[in-house]
Amino acid sequence: MSERIYTACVLIIGNEILSGRTQDTNLAHIALVLGEQGVRVREARVIADVEEEIVSAVNEARTKFDYVLTTGGIGPTHDDITADCIAKAFGVPLVVSEEIAAVIGQRPAPAEVMESRMLMARIPKGADLIDNPTGGPQGFCIGNVYVMAGIPSVMQGMLSTIPFAGGSVVRSCSVTAFLGESQVATGLAVLQEQHPDVDIGSYPFSRDGRYGTTLVIRGTDTEELNEVLDAVAELIRAGGEEPVDIKRA
Amino acid sequence: MSERIYTACVLIIGNEILSGRTQDTNLAHIALVLGEQGVRVREARVIADVEEEIVSAVNEARTKFDYVLTTGGIGPTHDDITADCIAKAFGVPLVVSEEIAAVIGQRPAPAEVMESRMLMARIPKGADLIDNPTGGPQGFCIGNVYVMAGIPSVMQGMLSTIPFAGGSVVRSCSVTAFLGESQVATGLAVLQEQHPDVDIGSYPFSRDGRYGTTLVIRGTDTEELNEVLDAVAELIRAGGEEPVDIKRA
Repeated sequence: MSERIYTACVLIIGNEILSGRTQDTNLAHIALVLGEQGVRVREARVIADVEEEIVSAVNEARTKFDYVLTTGGIGPTHDDITADCIAKAFGVPLVVSEEIAAVIGQRPAPAEVMESRMLMARIPKGADLIDNPTGGPQGFCIGNVYVMAGIPSVMQGMLSTIPFAGGSVVRSCSVTAFLGESQVATGLAVLQEQHPDVDIGSYPFSRDGRYGTTLVIRGTDTEELNEVLDAVAELIRAGGEEPVDIKRA
Repeated sequence: MSERIYTACVLIIGNEILSGRTQDTNLAHIALVLGEQGVRVREARVIADVEEEIVSAVNEARTKFDYVLTTGGIGPTHDDITADCIAKAFGVPLVVSEEIAAVIGQRPAPAEVMESRMLMARIPKGADLIDNPTGGPQGFCIGNVYVMAGIPSVMQGMLSTIPFAGGSVVRSCSVTAFLGESQVATGLAVLQEQHPDVDIGSYPFSRDGRYGTTLVIRGTDTEELNEVLDAVAELIRAGGEEPVDIKRA
């Protein structure tokens, strides 16, 4: 049975991530939330606050993936150009969302400040809103592109309101061994060949001066996942180590 | 004076980052280290362990940027396909590096384990080695592409040995204000227009229930940076707040 796989691309917009000044955490959060809904993040890009780069990344991603999610660049300052870029990517004008303007208008401010804030009410014509449970201006979606804030708490709130239509949920199981990857490499390759529907990943680490490897098996069939997990545990024992941290699917 | 700007693209290779299971920290580290050498990371991509995607990302990036740095996928298991992909991207065969093989051979192991480990000695023909101060197998570079391990400590060791030829070092200064971005937006836009050679970024946050904004000014001219910083501090005072955390360039 070949099942439809739903894919997503995450576009992280912002010079502060590219400068190394800010550590992105949005990608990992989005990947986990989408995974639970049966959507797999297949690519992510961190791009600068530069119009042509954002427009071309959006247009490339929206044809290639089922969903595109962007974070960042929807505030009220001169470097917040995401809405403009999305409108340009779709070839539509920006319009004022009365609904967002109403939210913004609730907090009183001097005229000049309000004018800047109202920039956040501009959305591409034809876009729908994404609720913002933190009470600030909403995000928006147009076509398969979902545009969210960059602040993690706000992004997480917005993301939690979006219903994604996904495929089977990808589950995982894992086991750790304090041995080198190479000690199980041959056996893993054989197992991967025998089970093409699961994805066996090997993630080496060093902890307290010891090298180890966590082996993660991902897929949609719980029974097959646990079967492969047992086989991996056997490989570890054959390598002379006891498997630890066994997490079944 | 229009100075040459050196650019880099970071390719983070690995399903574990895209699944959300592992939080990437390599991008921020690389960006900071390169910034100190006058090289600006202009784009980053997180890509899956899929040959065609890695090959096409490498070929696109190496023509577009001065430097391409990859992390991940150079271990001894079946999902470590980075070396194969780089060779394919450059249209050259893989060859065994005697120098890497010697490092690998220092640690005794059963024949089957050694065979897997020796996969890490394969590098694209014509590639140079990147030292590995942690004592494991080296990385390699070919053309403008630098191929490093994914484990942060190993990657950081490798990166520290690479001499990048960069331009002027990008410095930054910053100031924080407990006011909304919109309260300084108009003034910031004017300042940005007056100083096209600096990059003024506005990074909102919420901390202990209060909203605030950190304003970061980046550029190569220390005097101009501090001049803009003073002007931004003035904007904050004009908005009725006292600037905090002032960091001069």
